[in-house]
Amino acid sequence: MKVQGGRFMQDMIRVAVDAMGGDNAPGEIVKGAVEAVATRNDIKVLLVGQQDVVAEELGKYDYPKEQIEIVHAEEVIETAEPPVMAIRKKKDSSIVVAMNMVKHKEADALVSAGSSGAILVGGQVIVGRIKGIERPPLAPLIPTEKGVSLLVDCGANVDARASHLVQFAKMGSIYMEHVVGVKNPRVAIVNIGAEEEKGNALVKETFPLLKACTDINFVGSIEAREIPHGEADVIVCEAFTGNVILKLYEGLSSTLVGAIKQGMMSSLKSKIGAALALPALKKTLKAFDASAYGGAPLLGLNGLVVKTHGSAKAKEVKNSIIQCVTFKEQDINEKIKKNIVEETVEE
Amino acid sequence: MKVQGGRFMQDMIRVAVDAMGGDNAPGEIVKGAVEAVATRNDIKVLLVGQQDVVAEELGKYDYPKEQIEIVHAEEVIETAEPPVMAIRKKKDSSIVVAMNMVKHKEADALVSAGSSGAILVGGQVIVGRIKGIERPPLAPLIPTEKGVSLLVDCGANVDARASHLVQFAKMGSIYMEHVVGVKNPRVAIVNIGAEEEKGNALVKETFPLLKACTDINFVGSIEAREIPHGEADVIVCEAFTGNVILKLYEGLSSTLVGAIKQGMMSSLKSKIGAALALPALKKTLKAFDASAYGGAPLLGLNGLVVKTHGSAKAKEVKNSIIQCVTFKEQDINEKIKKNIVEETVEE
Repeated sequence: MKVQGGRFMQDMIRVAVDAMGGDNAPGEIVKGAVEAVATRNDIKVLLVGQQDVVAEELGKYDYPKEQIEIVHAEEVIETAEPPVMAIRKKKDSSIVVAMNMVKHKEADALVSAGSSGAILVGGQVIVGRIKGIERPPLAPLIPTEKGVSLLVDCGANVDARASHLVQFAKMGSIYMEHVVGVKNPRVAIVNIGAEEEKGNALVKETFPLLKACTDINFVGSIEAREIPHGEADVIVCEAFTGNVILKLYEGLSSTLVGAIKQGMMSSLKSKIGAALALPALKKTLKAFDASAYGGAPLLGLNGLVVKTHGSAKAKEVKNSIIQCVTFKEQDINEKIKKNIVEETVEE
Repeated sequence: MKVQGGRFMQDMIRVAVDAMGGDNAPGEIVKGAVEAVATRNDIKVLLVGQQDVVAEELGKYDYPKEQIEIVHAEEVIETAEPPVMAIRKKKDSSIVVAMNMVKHKEADALVSAGSSGAILVGGQVIVGRIKGIERPPLAPLIPTEKGVSLLVDCGANVDARASHLVQFAKMGSIYMEHVVGVKNPRVAIVNIGAEEEKGNALVKETFPLLKACTDINFVGSIEAREIPHGEADVIVCEAFTGNVILKLYEGLSSTLVGAIKQGMMSSLKSKIGAALALPALKKTLKAFDASAYGGAPLLGLNGLVVKTHGSAKAKEVKNSIIQCVTFKEQDINEKIKKNIVEETVEE
């Protein structure tokens, strides 16, 4: 019997992976699964999707057979489909089948690069919230000068209440400390000024509540300008704002990098310069590549659901799977229950 | 008597300039004023500030005496002062004196690099709104791949109503067409998805109202990712969101550029490359430099108030002054009254 770190095979962490979701499915998804199980032998990947298609991809690789299994699902939810309807109608889709596996404890976690809407809806409707958690936020890691910060919430449920944001702050803090490994993470709320009296109605209501939390390291407001400088580890905001920050990050980075590359191609001299500087440039841009950090967890569910980019390649899929292992090993959901839910009940 | 374009000297456009506001005052402000009057002879700049200090700066330059005048103001409002209090107490500050000149039609416009809060408050309280305009938005130009877009609102009044956003769209459209010169500007509302049914409560309420406007070229929702790609000319959003977009733009650009420069200094090879590519790189980054476009107008006031960056140098001050001339020449406020206010009254 294989052992690792004192853990027996029956203690393997089972990660359901949506083999059909995303722009590069199933090729890159299957490849990512193979790469993930190669890193450690206590992961079991359950590739959920069309049996023959997934088997064909998987056939291209050598891998420990006991660590990857295919679970058949006939249907696929397309990105453009209205999510609530898709989740309700396509019972045999890879996302719904995988969600049900998490619900019924046949899998510890789910990774999908498929429709964000379907993942967010399915997470809440099928997997379900931890009792006491009001709203499960989507919490991607975003690159900064100093490393990464957790941006919570970037989900689809907008117009949050102050009590939601307080739970986001606490869950984000637990995740950042125990999954990403940042000790005593600095928690800040997105605001339009550094002063406590600034902000919209939601921020003004939330600020004193966060200030009163003794179990997080609340450092106050953060202006959007300071986010890329890494001035906080957990960036708390309402989902509309989070979505704007996340997408502007993507859009502006690609625009600037594109403009710089194009600018360097403008003369022979600068072309030679670009060629010489390219390796260093690539290294810099890699530090700003969020894919190295895996996907975005949907926090506060009975199980773990991780959303990776629709454009995810094998590396990101692999890292998302490994992220699930850390999440499970660190018993994040138990910590959420103990630190947030029980405390809320006491209050 | 000097003439230009058939205009007599008494038709000069009078721009009050806050000589004491901003990180580089009064040096760069005075320099910007001198450069502005050098470009055309129908501008009269009224430099508002401490007589002796401003006169000393002005003494360094040769300039047409009839085009620059100093207006004494004893006090200065500091950036850190609470704006409402500062405006109320410091009656003899450069901002308040200049605002009163606009109010009493002794100046057509005001340019200040001083405290944003004081400018926003003073604009509303002293200069006052055009009758029928519910809320005057601050509308900076932001750089994109294709040129610039107008981001409206980035002001200090958050939690806007749908009717505010509709006026922002219309005023922004008039400004973009007649001051920046974009024909039939595309107007979009910031949203978290392209579909009409997406969004928070405010966006959902505003979307059909914008769609029903026959006097603007409304192209629907814009995701933050598309803003740097220049997918719309007028970007409409509530001020909290606008502030986040504007500041993230600044923070992310400086972070990325800094990281790229630093990355290029990492080896001798890349250093040589950087040296060769530097002129092209600088040219690219210049295209992303918002200062070329002047300052941000506060739209919908009885007169024009332009806020330039606190860090503005002479070039930005000059461009802000020239922007005031275009604003006045194009009779923007008359267009706002005719197209927005009268229409509102009719409804």
